[in-house]
Amino acid sequence: MQITNDVTKLFSITYPIIQAGMVWAAGWRLAAAVSNCGGLGLIGSGSMKPELHREHIQKCRAATQKPFGVNIPLLREDAIELVRVAIEEKIPVVFSSAGNPETFVALLKQNGCTVVHVVSSVRQAEKAARVGCDAIVGEGVEAGGHNGRDEITTLCLIPQLVDAVKIPVIAAGGIADGRQIAAAFCLGARGVQIGTRFAATIESSAHEQYKQVVAAAQDSGTVLAFRKLALVRMLKNDFALRAVKAEAEGWDEPQLEELLGKKRERAGIFEGDDAEGEMEAGQSSGLIKDILPVADVFKKLIQEYAAAKSLLM
Amino acid sequence: MQITNDVTKLFSITYPIIQAGMVWAAGWRLAAAVSNCGGLGLIGSGSMKPELHREHIQKCRAATQKPFGVNIPLLREDAIELVRVAIEEKIPVVFSSAGNPETFVALLKQNGCTVVHVVSSVRQAEKAARVGCDAIVGEGVEAGGHNGRDEITTLCLIPQLVDAVKIPVIAAGGIADGRQIAAAFCLGARGVQIGTRFAATIESSAHEQYKQVVAAAQDSGTVLAFRKLALVRMLKNDFALRAVKAEAEGWDEPQLEELLGKKRERAGIFEGDDAEGEMEAGQSSGLIKDILPVADVFKKLIQEYAAAKSLLM
Repeated sequence: MQITNDVTKLFSITYPIIQAGMVWAAGWRLAAAVSNCGGLGLIGSGSMKPELHREHIQKCRAATQKPFGVNIPLLREDAIELVRVAIEEKIPVVFSSAGNPETFVALLKQNGCTVVHVVSSVRQAEKAARVGCDAIVGEGVEAGGHNGRDEITTLCLIPQLVDAVKIPVIAAGGIADGRQIAAAFCLGARGVQIGTRFAATIESSAHEQYKQVVAAAQDSGTVLAFRKLALVRMLKNDFALRAVKAEAEGWDEPQLEELLGKKRERAGIFEGDDAEGEMEAGQSSGLIKDILPVADVFKKLIQEYAAAKSLLM
Repeated sequence: MQITNDVTKLFSITYPIIQAGMVWAAGWRLAAAVSNCGGLGLIGSGSMKPELHREHIQKCRAATQKPFGVNIPLLREDAIELVRVAIEEKIPVVFSSAGNPETFVALLKQNGCTVVHVVSSVRQAEKAARVGCDAIVGEGVEAGGHNGRDEITTLCLIPQLVDAVKIPVIAAGGIADGRQIAAAFCLGARGVQIGTRFAATIESSAHEQYKQVVAAAQDSGTVLAFRKLALVRMLKNDFALRAVKAEAEGWDEPQLEELLGKKRERAGIFEGDDAEGEMEAGQSSGLIKDILPVADVFKKLIQEYAAAKSLLM
């Protein structure tokens, strides 16, 4: 896979493969390993307080000479503090998700950052382009964690985004192997963002039990729930199945908030509570059979991509 | 697009493009037009009584020299009668959906039919292969109409089916343009089945108003509903939004059955009731901007496929 395109140039990377900045899984070790392989590693700032965020950035910088970035969920009350840390630490690339990109894009760009916003619909993509983002991630409903309310799949979303905006589109949601990377490029994406496959690597900071559950999951291993709060995709476990049942029974927002409680993501992903934790993962889990070092994942992705390409006549 | 592969050979067709046998939209005119363009046209037997089914087959045969098939939903009480008509009329290819393929596969194959079953999970695919189907359609949750309960998307489903079975996999769900055909081939599919794009052609027997609503739909234009009865994807209208609200409120099966009532598909697709009809359509509706003759759709698909191929480096 030798690809020089808008996305590799924008981030000064070798392969247009971006590792999603996932909460609790994407610490400095994972981001540095991905950047060292020629992709773009992202620190998942969403599960970090500002000072821990700074620590991860500094450790990542010590572990790689290559560019890396951070992913900041803009809905967080202290998002501005995470943004300030990124600027002070001279992070070259900031991915923003879950919120209004307009809030911080000017500030980030004044400070030399490349800004990429995660979107799940054409309307959001047009807004991100209008307010000055350099690229977008189009994330289909296959993705683990929080998803857009329109539940548009990657296969349908990406070509519509490519038709709607002139900035590069990076495909995300459900991508765990090289066949899917080739597919995303056919749809017009210029890069891919991969989450769950990297969450189930040796270098991921997710709990070993979380990684094992991902590797054991079948095609039907995840569910969507909490449409009335914030739609989330997670692995099926006791908690997830209770949430699906509650939704089918018509529970209202306060009841669902009580069921959800607090710190479920931490419990599921970081502490490995495979019964009661919220184990966010993509529908790609069914394609993931093993827990590998990041370098081996890269090798596989590149081999699979080359084989997939040769299927087109 | 010059493709000779397992799928073109299996059906004796020029392009590995199959038109879905959709209820109320896929009559003899549509199937004949698709087969005349070098794809495989399918008559949608699901909305026909046995004698009407026979009439459509005979008219289709008069309108094309090329092979065509029928799609029979096996859950229908009188499915055996539709199967008998297909055998008597020497239909070379039968697609079966919504039911157990084991019921009729031996009978069909004894009578020289090629049998293809529509599946939405790895488990269903393995069963279809085991009972002797010649190929499968893997249909992602993007698809219009009835969908599998696991809600697996095309991007995630197809590579898992390709890994699981040795018979050819045809990708369906969300495909309306040539970029997506190229993507499906990268995933390992050997053909595609396209529904909504063909439902919105001149030759489709769907009502003009249905076609107009498809062509006007945006990326978020469809919803899934009736998970407690039989999951269905349809265009958003008064009826569809009432169904989504009822589901969120936790209505039970008898209440939902009353809301659904009878003959909603006919009203939506065939009679053009764009407020109260069930206007089944795929998430690909957002990609469809015009109502075209089938020959023009084929031209576009083939041009878009060639352009998408050239994006892979």
